[in-house]
Amino acid sequence: MASSPVRRPGKKKVLIYGHYDVQPPEPLDLWKSPPFEPQIINNAIYARGASDNKGQHFAHLLAVESFLGSQNEAPCDVIFLLEGEEEVGSQSLTKFLREHKDILNCDCIVVSDSGMPARNLPALTYALRGVVALELIIKGPSHDLHSGVYGGAIENPAYVLCKIIAGLKDDQGRITIPGIYDDVRPLSAEERLQLARLPFSEDEFKKQLGVVKIFGESGFTTWERRAARPTIEINGITSGYQGEGSKTIIPSVASAKITLRIVPDQRPERVYELVRKHIEGACPDTVTLSIVPGHMGEAYITSYDSVYSRAAIDALRKAYGVEPVLMREGGSVPIVTEFKKILGVDSLLIGMALPDDNPHSPNEKFDIDSFYKGIEMSMLLLEEIGKI
Amino acid sequence: MASSPVRRPGKKKVLIYGHYDVQPPEPLDLWKSPPFEPQIINNAIYARGASDNKGQHFAHLLAVESFLGSQNEAPCDVIFLLEGEEEVGSQSLTKFLREHKDILNCDCIVVSDSGMPARNLPALTYALRGVVALELIIKGPSHDLHSGVYGGAIENPAYVLCKIIAGLKDDQGRITIPGIYDDVRPLSAEERLQLARLPFSEDEFKKQLGVVKIFGESGFTTWERRAARPTIEINGITSGYQGEGSKTIIPSVASAKITLRIVPDQRPERVYELVRKHIEGACPDTVTLSIVPGHMGEAYITSYDSVYSRAAIDALRKAYGVEPVLMREGGSVPIVTEFKKILGVDSLLIGMALPDDNPHSPNEKFDIDSFYKGIEMSMLLLEEIGKI
Repeated sequence: MASSPVRRPGKKKVLIYGHYDVQPPEPLDLWKSPPFEPQIINNAIYARGASDNKGQHFAHLLAVESFLGSQNEAPCDVIFLLEGEEEVGSQSLTKFLREHKDILNCDCIVVSDSGMPARNLPALTYALRGVVALELIIKGPSHDLHSGVYGGAIENPAYVLCKIIAGLKDDQGRITIPGIYDDVRPLSAEERLQLARLPFSEDEFKKQLGVVKIFGESGFTTWERRAARPTIEINGITSGYQGEGSKTIIPSVASAKITLRIVPDQRPERVYELVRKHIEGACPDTVTLSIVPGHMGEAYITSYDSVYSRAAIDALRKAYGVEPVLMREGGSVPIVTEFKKILGVDSLLIGMALPDDNPHSPNEKFDIDSFYKGIEMSMLLLEEIGKI
Repeated sequence: MASSPVRRPGKKKVLIYGHYDVQPPEPLDLWKSPPFEPQIINNAIYARGASDNKGQHFAHLLAVESFLGSQNEAPCDVIFLLEGEEEVGSQSLTKFLREHKDILNCDCIVVSDSGMPARNLPALTYALRGVVALELIIKGPSHDLHSGVYGGAIENPAYVLCKIIAGLKDDQGRITIPGIYDDVRPLSAEERLQLARLPFSEDEFKKQLGVVKIFGESGFTTWERRAARPTIEINGITSGYQGEGSKTIIPSVASAKITLRIVPDQRPERVYELVRKHIEGACPDTVTLSIVPGHMGEAYITSYDSVYSRAAIDALRKAYGVEPVLMREGGSVPIVTEFKKILGVDSLLIGMALPDDNPHSPNEKFDIDSFYKGIEMSMLLLEEIGKI
C-alpha cells in the first residue's frame, strides 16, 4: 500500500487497486518468447502479467507520477493498493481491509483488471454476477456391483444424478427451480440498449468457443445471458468406471459439481436454499443424497449514474474519443464486493486490455498504444474526480 | 484339452469345461491366509480359484477318475477342456473352437463355474442374459470455458448428457426406448414359479448390497428383474472437473459408458440400433454427439425339458436329496453362447459353490462338503447321461 502523505482538505481520495501475482505461465512451449523476459513485438509487450494486471496498474502509477512531475500534485489524494493473492481469492486482503478500514478510507475505488470489449470501445462495468457453488452426491450400493448379476434390481445412482440434473433447466434454457427468478432485478430498457452496443458476431462467437450453435435462456441476447441473467452450470460429474473400454458395474456413487451465477438482487443464501430444497424433493428414496455447499459470493451492482461513474464516463469519452459503453460482466470479482461491504465504497471497473491480450493464456501481451492511452485516461479520470 | 482315447459306439460324449486362470488376489491385506497357499479352515479350502473354478472343475475330474478306478470306464466318453483366459473373455478359446470343431464334437457340455442359490438347494441354469455396450460422448465447446464469463450463453454438454440419460427409463423402472421390449420372450408361468422358489429376503438383499430400498421394473420380482428382464445401466460418467473443491468451468466434453443386459429373443444388433436411434433423436443440435459401440453378446437359453437337462435335474435331485430349482441368471457367460454357435451343443450350467464362497473377492473358499457332493453329483450326472 502507498498513500498520499497527508489528506488534503477538500480533495477526493481515490484508491487504485491492482495485483502483482500472475497465473502460472504453463504450457511453456506455447509461448513465443520467455514469459518472464518481457519483449516488445508488433507494438505490444509480451510477458506473463503484462495485461493481467501489472501493465494496467502501471499506467495508473505513471498517471500520478506525471501529475507529480508537472504540477507537483495530483488532482486527488491517492492510495495504491497492490496485493499478491488475486489469482487465488484475495483472502489476506479481505482480512487487511477489515483491520485497516481507517487508513483505507476513500471516496472511490478504481480497478483496471479487465479488458475493453473492442479496440477503441471503452467500457465502464457497473455490475458483476455472484456465485453459489455446491456438490451433489448420490450414494447407491455400498460398493460397485456386477451389472449383470444385479442390473435392474436396484437403483443406479448415476441415473438418479442425471435425472435430478436434467430437471434443473427446461428446453428454453430457463432454470426450473421454483422461486429462483423471484428476486432477479430486471434489466431496464437503458441497460438493454447499452448491452446491445457491445460488439457481437454470432459466427465469430461460435468459432471462438468451438460450438455448433449458440443456446441460452429464451427472450435474452447472448450478452444479456452472459452478464445479467442467473445461470446454473454443471462443472463436473464423476461416477463409476472412467478408464478405457468397459467395466460392467452399477456404480456405488455418483456426484456432480454445480455452480450458479447469480445477479442483483439475488441473495446467495436464499438461492442455495431454493436449490437444496428442489434437489431434495427431486431425489427418490431409493438412494442416499447429500448436498455439500461450496463457496458463495454476492453479485455486485452500482449506479452508472453516480457522480463517480459519470466522472469515469467523461474520462473514457475524452481519452478514447467515443461514447463509452455501460456494461455488466458475467464473472465474479469477489474483492469488489468486499470493498463495498467493508469500506462502503463503490468501484469503477475500467479495463484497458484488448480482447486478444490472452490473460491467463500463453503469449499474454499488453498493447503499447493501450498502455499510453491508459495513462492518459487515468490522468483524465483523476482530473474528473478532482472536479466533483 | 484331454479326451477319451477312442470314441465308443453308442456312448454319449460329454465336454466338461473349466478354467485355470483366476482373478487377481488383491487387496492382499484382506486375506486371512495367503491366496496362493491353500489352507483348510472350518471345513473349507481357502485359496484364490478354490471355487472359481479349480475346485469345481477338479470335482468333475475326480468323478471320472473314480469311474476309471472302480469300473475301468466312465458311463460316457469325456472331453476335459480347460482354458486360461476365462477371466479376460475367452478370445483364444473361441478361435480354438472354430479351428477344432471336429475333435470337440460332443453331445452335451457341462459347466460348473457358478454357485448354488443356497446350501443344499441345487440349481440348473438354463438361461443367461446377453450384453450390449456403448459409450455416449457429447462435445460442446472446443475447450473448457469460464462459467462466469460464458455460463448461460452456450449449451453445457454435461447437462445434455444427463438429459439424454434421464430419458432412458421411466419412474417405474421401464426402459423408454421405443421397441426395446418387442422381442422379449415372456416368462412362462412355470418359469415364474421356479424363480419364486429361489431364496430371497428383502432385508438380507438390502443389507448385502448396502442399499436403502430395492427398486426395479414394476410388475416383476427381484429375481425376475435380475435374471429375465432387459436392463440399461450407467457404468460410468466422466465430465469436467473432478478434483477437490471447485473449478468454475463449462466442460468441453461429457461421456457415459452404458451397458444393456438383453434376454432371449432380443438380438444385440437390433437393440443397439434402437438405442442409437433413440439417443440421436433425443440429442439437441447445440452439441455434437458420438455413440461408440462396445462389445455385444447374445443371451443364452436352452430347454430345461431336453433329455440332457432332465438328466442333470435327476442327478442333482439324487445327489442333494431335494428338487433342483430351474433358474435363469443375469450375468453373461460368452463362451456358452460360442459353444452353442460353433459346436451347436447346449451347456448344462450347474454350480457347486455356496453363496458365501467369495469368488473374485478376498478369502475365496470352496466348501469341502460341497466338493465331495460335487464329485458324487458329477458321477450321477455321467450315469444319467449314459442312460440316454
